[in-house]
Amino acid sequence: MAEIYRASTTAPVNIAVIKYWGKRDPKLNLPTNSSLSVTLSQSDLRTHTTASCSPSYPASDSLLLNGSPQDVSGARTQACFRELRALRKQLEDADLAVPKLSAMPLKIVSENNFPTAAGLASSAAGFAALVRAIANLYELPASPTALSRIARQGSGSACRSLFGGYVGWEQGSAVDGSDSVAFQVAPANHWPSMRAIILVVSAAKKGVSSTTGMQATVATSSLFASRTSEIVPRRMAEMQKAIQEKDFETFGKVTMMDSNSFHATCLDTYPPIFYLNDVSRAAIKVVEEINASAGKIIAAYTFDAGPNAVIYYLEENEVQVAGLFKAMMGEKEGWKSERGEKVQGNEQAFQAVEKEAGVAVALLREDVSRVILTGVGEGPEKTEESLIDEKGQPTT
Amino acid sequence: MAEIYRASTTAPVNIAVIKYWGKRDPKLNLPTNSSLSVTLSQSDLRTHTTASCSPSYPASDSLLLNGSPQDVSGARTQACFRELRALRKQLEDADLAVPKLSAMPLKIVSENNFPTAAGLASSAAGFAALVRAIANLYELPASPTALSRIARQGSGSACRSLFGGYVGWEQGSAVDGSDSVAFQVAPANHWPSMRAIILVVSAAKKGVSSTTGMQATVATSSLFASRTSEIVPRRMAEMQKAIQEKDFETFGKVTMMDSNSFHATCLDTYPPIFYLNDVSRAAIKVVEEINASAGKIIAAYTFDAGPNAVIYYLEENEVQVAGLFKAMMGEKEGWKSERGEKVQGNEQAFQAVEKEAGVAVALLREDVSRVILTGVGEGPEKTEESLIDEKGQPTT
Repeated sequence: MAEIYRASTTAPVNIAVIKYWGKRDPKLNLPTNSSLSVTLSQSDLRTHTTASCSPSYPASDSLLLNGSPQDVSGARTQACFRELRALRKQLEDADLAVPKLSAMPLKIVSENNFPTAAGLASSAAGFAALVRAIANLYELPASPTALSRIARQGSGSACRSLFGGYVGWEQGSAVDGSDSVAFQVAPANHWPSMRAIILVVSAAKKGVSSTTGMQATVATSSLFASRTSEIVPRRMAEMQKAIQEKDFETFGKVTMMDSNSFHATCLDTYPPIFYLNDVSRAAIKVVEEINASAGKIIAAYTFDAGPNAVIYYLEENEVQVAGLFKAMMGEKEGWKSERGEKVQGNEQAFQAVEKEAGVAVALLREDVSRVILTGVGEGPEKTEESLIDEKGQPTT
Repeated sequence: MAEIYRASTTAPVNIAVIKYWGKRDPKLNLPTNSSLSVTLSQSDLRTHTTASCSPSYPASDSLLLNGSPQDVSGARTQACFRELRALRKQLEDADLAVPKLSAMPLKIVSENNFPTAAGLASSAAGFAALVRAIANLYELPASPTALSRIARQGSGSACRSLFGGYVGWEQGSAVDGSDSVAFQVAPANHWPSMRAIILVVSAAKKGVSSTTGMQATVATSSLFASRTSEIVPRRMAEMQKAIQEKDFETFGKVTMMDSNSFHATCLDTYPPIFYLNDVSRAAIKVVEEINASAGKIIAAYTFDAGPNAVIYYLEENEVQVAGLFKAMMGEKEGWKSERGEKVQGNEQAFQAVEKEAGVAVALLREDVSRVILTGVGEGPEKTEESLIDEKGQPTT
């Protein structure tokens, strides 16, 4: 029987604090501005991927995600396969003893440890895991930076999931995208106390749907140019300094302002794009109340292309932030996790906020379906746990 | 008995299509950008004001609005009184036969023909009527432009309610505000077929309240500068041309884009300011569907500092626009007006939109409390109907 080659990895989700929105080259996924994110812990949110190849496999590459066959013929996935195979081919050409894996069909199996219904952008973790798993399979000597250049072509923000901790994505200027890569601003252990609570808005309340598309913003928003040319470059510098200095007040303020700026350019798009809804606004209101009662910024909201709120805070303020949400909505799904059980409900702080922002509290209680508790975490990790057995079959 | 001098006027509401947001001089109400509005018909929305003075009146000036005494000691109202008295004083000094009204206490009575609960910015009509009524009382030879300079100091957008039709407000550059005045772009009869339907959002669904203030936008929004320096100047020119040429497609597109741009800078404010809520988004969605099915722009939404949608359209498209809303929510208050009775419900168009945008339709049906049907109209009009009787008492 022909040999089956296999390698497995896990890869994390990342949530940006300086947002990526707009491509200067849609084919290569080259962005109009740099961005910066926090890599989230894989014990809470991760993609687990096994890449495998064999001369005995059916001729065409395949990908199984959460048990469902995926289309791999798209330009994005093909670009990743092509680039990784080319790197493998170099190894094979340099040493004839190296098995010719680049010529074999790929079989990939992937699983997320979080529900798709959570509405979290899973493509970042997905492409990071795909690229890392194939790189492991091919035994490529490529650095995370080199792999980030490849993952970027699958899904822009995937490049940031090749690193743990605090991660930047340099927009670059080269036409071929060679300098548009991720870099680590600081490892997770530099500032390990960063936490996040994600308020997942129930599907029924996602609100009025809107046609989306960052390229519509690039083409029609008249406010967008100043965001990319002036505002984001300034904030990238501020944010990196805040992370180096573990300055949460600046980190939080810039995070909130950049989320607002991103959504403002969406609203300025024609026709306008809306991701924030009344539930999102309610989360903003409650964060503002938390900070007002602390007398400083101890919680910072950010929103991706959807209504779910991601709220960053430091472990030392867990009772004031996560504790308040536990008192507000302790019956929701998500609190029975290891992290959730540890959070002490803060009834007093909750009641104070409810007095100031009763409408917001009522909306959140009604329309948040679950919470996810997480924190800063590590980059992709090799694992021996394979999703493909020694016969080349999916294990589940 | 001492003589009682009286004069009365009505003044219109105006709804901007290029928005005023941001002051370069808060004391004089000098704006950071020019703006442009449509004056709405006074048969639907107007303030009626009688100004009166007499040596027999109590020493201090007074103002009764909808039966409630108002504070007139604020700097805004005082500025209007002072400027108007100074102009009167010039007449008195030039001709000793002219009665010395400028030295007499003022008594003003004012009434709106629309419910305060409608949440329409009534201060524009209010200050325009106040200034126009006192100017009539004082028999000032002042032009609407000269009076607009005074009304602006009461409430910025009031200056535009001194004219009928299509009205601009030139931001000006003089430090004393002398060139920050309103001007008529075109009279109502130049393009008389302009109509508007206002969807008033029920008070209960105004959503999460937010701290407001245009000066916060000026101070903190990093997107704001390009709006005032580049975007609005370009749109002012486009909009004036569209009005001259009766080009509704351009009028509508610029109206929607400028509303979105204004609300985008609100969202980019720190902390963010939200006026649009899920009901507003639903109105936007329905307008987009109306335009999509017409294959061109026949309806244009705009939102002031609140969730109510004002939707402009031309009389020739009444069935496709107002008719659709009548089929959607014909049971709401507002359709029993003279204009409302004439609108033919458009069940077919409504059903098509409901199929495409069912969530939006359900939200509007639930949370719009009333509609107001109106159209372009004339400027302030002198009236003999006095709200103060010959004895100096309010008539109601």
